[in-house]
Amino acid sequence: MAEKIPFILDTDTAQDDCVAILLGAMSERAEMLGITMVAGNVGFERQIQNAQLTLNVMGKLGQIPIFTGCSQPMLRPWASAENVHGDGSGGLTMDFDAATAEDEHAVDALLRLTAERPGEVSVVAIGPLTNIAAAIVKDRQFVKNVKSLYIMGGSNNGRGNITPSAEFNFYVDPEAAQIVFTAGFERIVVLPWDPVTLVDATITRAEYDKRCAFGTPISDFFKAVCDTTLDFNESVGVDGSTHPDSATLAALLYPELVTKSSPYRVDVETASELTRGYSAMGWDKFDNFQPNAEVIEKFDKDAFFAILDDLLQTQTTPDKETWIA
Amino acid sequence: MAEKIPFILDTDTAQDDCVAILLGAMSERAEMLGITMVAGNVGFERQIQNAQLTLNVMGKLGQIPIFTGCSQPMLRPWASAENVHGDGSGGLTMDFDAATAEDEHAVDALLRLTAERPGEVSVVAIGPLTNIAAAIVKDRQFVKNVKSLYIMGGSNNGRGNITPSAEFNFYVDPEAAQIVFTAGFERIVVLPWDPVTLVDATITRAEYDKRCAFGTPISDFFKAVCDTTLDFNESVGVDGSTHPDSATLAALLYPELVTKSSPYRVDVETASELTRGYSAMGWDKFDNFQPNAEVIEKFDKDAFFAILDDLLQTQTTPDKETWIA
Amino acid sequence: MAEKIPFILDTDTAQDDCVAILLGAMSERAEMLGITMVAGNVGFERQIQNAQLTLNVMGKLGQIPIFTGCSQPMLRPWASAENVHGDGSGGLTMDFDAATAEDEHAVDALLRLTAERPGEVSVVAIGPLTNIAAAIVKDRQFVKNVKSLYIMGGSNNGRGNITPSAEFNFYVDPEAAQIVFTAGFERIVVLPWDPVTLVDATITRAEYDKRCAFGTPISDFFKAVCDTTLDFNESVGVDGSTHPDSATLAALLYPELVTKSSPYRVDVETASELTRGYSAMGWDKFDNFQPNAEVIEKFDKDAFFAILDDLLQTQTTPDKETWIA
Amino acid sequence: MAEKIPFILDTDTAQDDCVAILLGAMSERAEMLGITMVAGNVGFERQIQNAQLTLNVMGKLGQIPIFTGCSQPMLRPWASAENVHGDGSGGLTMDFDAATAEDEHAVDALLRLTAERPGEVSVVAIGPLTNIAAAIVKDRQFVKNVKSLYIMGGSNNGRGNITPSAEFNFYVDPEAAQIVFTAGFERIVVLPWDPVTLVDATITRAEYDKRCAFGTPISDFFKAVCDTTLDFNESVGVDGSTHPDSATLAALLYPELVTKSSPYRVDVETASELTRGYSAMGWDKFDNFQPNAEVIEKFDKDAFFAILDDLLQTQTTPDKETWIA
Repeated sequence: MAEKIPFILDTDTAQDDCVAILLGAMSERAEMLGITMVAGNVGFERQIQNAQLTLNVMGKLGQIPIFTGCSQPMLRPWASAENVHGDGSGGLTMDFDAATAEDEHAVDALLRLTAERPGEVSVVAIGPLTNIAAAIVKDRQFVKNVKSLYIMGGSNNGRGNITPSAEFNFYVDPEAAQIVFTAGFERIVVLPWDPVTLVDATITRAEYDKRCAFGTPISDFFKAVCDTTLDFNESVGVDGSTHPDSATLAALLYPELVTKSSPYRVDVETASELTRGYSAMGWDKFDNFQPNAEVIEKFDKDAFFAILDDLLQTQTTPDKETWIA
Repeated sequence: MAEKIPFILDTDTAQDDCVAILLGAMSERAEMLGITMVAGNVGFERQIQNAQLTLNVMGKLGQIPIFTGCSQPMLRPWASAENVHGDGSGGLTMDFDAATAEDEHAVDALLRLTAERPGEVSVVAIGPLTNIAAAIVKDRQFVKNVKSLYIMGGSNNGRGNITPSAEFNFYVDPEAAQIVFTAGFERIVVLPWDPVTLVDATITRAEYDKRCAFGTPISDFFKAVCDTTLDFNESVGVDGSTHPDSATLAALLYPELVTKSSPYRVDVETASELTRGYSAMGWDKFDNFQPNAEVIEKFDKDAFFAILDDLLQTQTTPDKETWIA
Repeated sequence: MAEKIPFILDTDTAQDDCVAILLGAMSERAEMLGITMVAGNVGFERQIQNAQLTLNVMGKLGQIPIFTGCSQPMLRPWASAENVHGDGSGGLTMDFDAATAEDEHAVDALLRLTAERPGEVSVVAIGPLTNIAAAIVKDRQFVKNVKSLYIMGGSNNGRGNITPSAEFNFYVDPEAAQIVFTAGFERIVVLPWDPVTLVDATITRAEYDKRCAFGTPISDFFKAVCDTTLDFNESVGVDGSTHPDSATLAALLYPELVTKSSPYRVDVETASELTRGYSAMGWDKFDNFQPNAEVIEKFDKDAFFAILDDLLQTQTTPDKETWIA
Repeated sequence: MAEKIPFILDTDTAQDDCVAILLGAMSERAEMLGITMVAGNVGFERQIQNAQLTLNVMGKLGQIPIFTGCSQPMLRPWASAENVHGDGSGGLTMDFDAATAEDEHAVDALLRLTAERPGEVSVVAIGPLTNIAAAIVKDRQFVKNVKSLYIMGGSNNGRGNITPSAEFNFYVDPEAAQIVFTAGFERIVVLPWDPVTLVDATITRAEYDKRCAFGTPISDFFKAVCDTTLDFNESVGVDGSTHPDSATLAALLYPELVTKSSPYRVDVETASELTRGYSAMGWDKFDNFQPNAEVIEKFDKDAFFAILDDLLQTQTTPDKETWIA
């Protein structure tokens, strides 16, 4: 068996973040060292509970450490996306055990876990980049220690999802995003919202429904958490269930899924009220091109959803009973 | 015969601007009331000469008034595109006659010609928007008098051609562009650089060469003026000869060419150094959507180039002899 | 007698603008070639009427041409200051005669009057700089033709009067102001709001009252138009009647009043929502200092008000009767 | 004896930062819990050495913990001020002992020391605000735990010292500064560069020379470290030796020195290249005034320098020998 890929998952856990946690905890290629939690989609406490619910469905509650991180974006007040996500797990709840959260701060966990194995550990950031930026600001050595940084965020065609120009993760904390992109990481890989997510990591409602009916606890959980986003998506003209977060982690674990990517110069707009959070992407036809990221342009949709299907059909025994609140 | 469409062509005449002038002077649907000249692609004096060369090849020198306009963008120094356009007409020259330029300023011509027939005259702006903005600032009644304003500029996918985020016309004078888009025109139609120009108003070198070989004075002139841009395009990964300016005028004269367009909220970035000139485009899925323009999304390429072909095959007798300088 | 100083007064006529018109029309040193009107303090039509009221009180109605100019700032909607100025002349009204406004546009008058005597005519701009910027954009030769440009605007200590950072005239049209300061004028002289106006061009209520009681038509008019601002000033902690506009014109006519001034690099903030209109002022201790204006730092208050006193005591015969509406 | 005031000194130690450390370690009113080091004036390692040199001269080496903090500003590359400060202590050096720096990160020390005594400990920040902002981002509870935050930075008259509009500390890390001012601290007190430092915390060369000749180790040290700044000051038109950092700490320890202060709304410019780091200060005459800081307007110069004089005349026995490198 191939060596497992060690990584930390930085997440604002709601909907597809849960699917990413499932993938990170179940894939035979994955060594998920920890889950670091950042302010983003829904209320901070609820995000932690969503991660716990996700570990629970696999019978892994308490087996992967959850670290609580920065509770607000760096400079501006937090803009939640509860209209998109509800509580992030479709009203699911259980008898939560606070003991499953670590005392260590997410920023310190990011610094420690990468310093313990310099150049070996990757980070997969699927929420706003506040924790990652805070780690950089605290200790620049972090930048050297991280093997590769996978980011879900931005758009590669000027079409945002929270404002016309900005994608949600970059919009929530553009200063953090720009700190990250200018920090000098050896390797940043970006999976953008548009077009890659919308084209290659989205399934129609019919395809979605099929996956909700596998009859496993994970398949039931998948339906419980993903219904809310699907409904929202359809209300704003996005046709189907979107899986940007699990796709980003899959890009690390299964690099063969990335069928096209190119070097880009990514900068995130912080100066303009009009376009705050816009991801300006430069390519190699411009003078003084200084790439700082590899941006995924095509992704193997069929192979990706085949991996998810295997996951959703896996039989597990949840640790605790859950119920719809 | 259908009624002719009266319009003013506002242009920074080089390469495809010349083709637009050819179309505007030859189309049976066109009543080109005047050519107003704005700082843009190449040196201001040379642009005027390029317009004269274009009228000359049709034997129409002195028949359509040329008005000289604003010689610099509003706020920042002029950024030329001579690397793209050379002198804008492939080194062509002749015995220029200054008398073919009017005493009246382009801004006053725009105001007067639209005020004489309120609500009847359109404006087709295929260069930076300095003249149009200056007309608005001088007399807000201009906004009410213009029937429709056709603009070549911006991109609808976040991909610029002068910077990663900005298209040339909007980049040269973003303040002017933003003045125009927020002025309250009844109807603005935008033909963007990317993707419409690159997909639907671009021909390969082979297709181009065929059109250069029709053996008419206009076809010879077409080759003389367009070669420079084609060479430049290929050097930056654009495969073919681009015709955004003539396409924009064609969209006014032959509305059936516009096979898809949608209402957008267009704002042009003026606040950020990073993304100066970026055209932020909002659509109807965002809250408080207030459209200010119709943006062309698909354009009938075959029908457009068929019109150009007819034009290029028309026999004309130039007024004066020209030579390659 | 010394040669008169030819100039154009560009004004958003309300309160102290009226006093500037009085000074421009009465001073033996002044040759006021025209009054150009720009959007600013109060409603545009009312500003024109205020200028007419002012000419009327001197019996000069129709003797100095009034040119109507740009009715809105360049880029953003107009922010009036009617809370400060009321209607700008204390409710005064008369049987207005529209015929006293010229057909020629203020921008064209500025261009023509300065082109007729290149290098001889000064411009005194005591409102937002929209007209001046529009003249520059239309014809850059204007910049060469103007002898000196006197501007009332900005602050030299980071203390604004419409926002914490911005003075009203620059705030209303910062793009216009920045166009002006970067246009390359041979000589710009700035009289700022703070501290010069507040220290050297302000009189206490007691001093003000004395000047309102001279018993002349001009003195009565002075009281009628200036009361509103004085009341407003006191409500915002400014102790007295402020005379920035008449002081700016006086600085041109009586250069001996300027007891201290220094070269500065003035730039007006257009990029930031927070500080829009702020006048960034650089001085000679900074690297690469490139001054573009002379900023007045001390002004001879006693001599200035002595000049105003002479003016206010002059007996005149108004053309028409006025009344408080 | 009055209760001592517990505080942490956050510093980019060079010149007057050293004087602040002297004051913090010697004043009978002071309980200096720690020195946290932030990137700023000079090289980071050198700053730590400067702090050690300062503790050494008092014979307190190792008695007050030094915590190393953020080594770069949050978003932009570090701009040093070595032209102003040299190495920050006039070439002084000794046999440095790395053991005097703690393992704990400055950000964690700030969080821990304030959390141990919630509402009791003040923070005195006399360098760029990177450490303070990083503490806020990591744990918002910090904001509640700090008793009062004293800041040396900004200007209250629009006159900077590193750019025309910006003071050095805010310019180096404006994003950090804005994070601090918008975080919701119960009490922020600001001692600005201009005018308070220049008027009330500056002594002429003659006054300075007198203080350098007291013949104590501290007086000798004072001269060694402060000469560089004085020379620089004179080269840019500042007449004398400036003591903003020690004055800021004195304002906490000796509140009677603050003879005038007012509530202000302080925001630090991050959006504009032109005015980056400018401290926009709003006061109570503006609508919707929401003060977030108390800004010192007058400071008792005589009493402050009397305190410094006592300090400089105190006899001490340095721990180690120092020499001029």
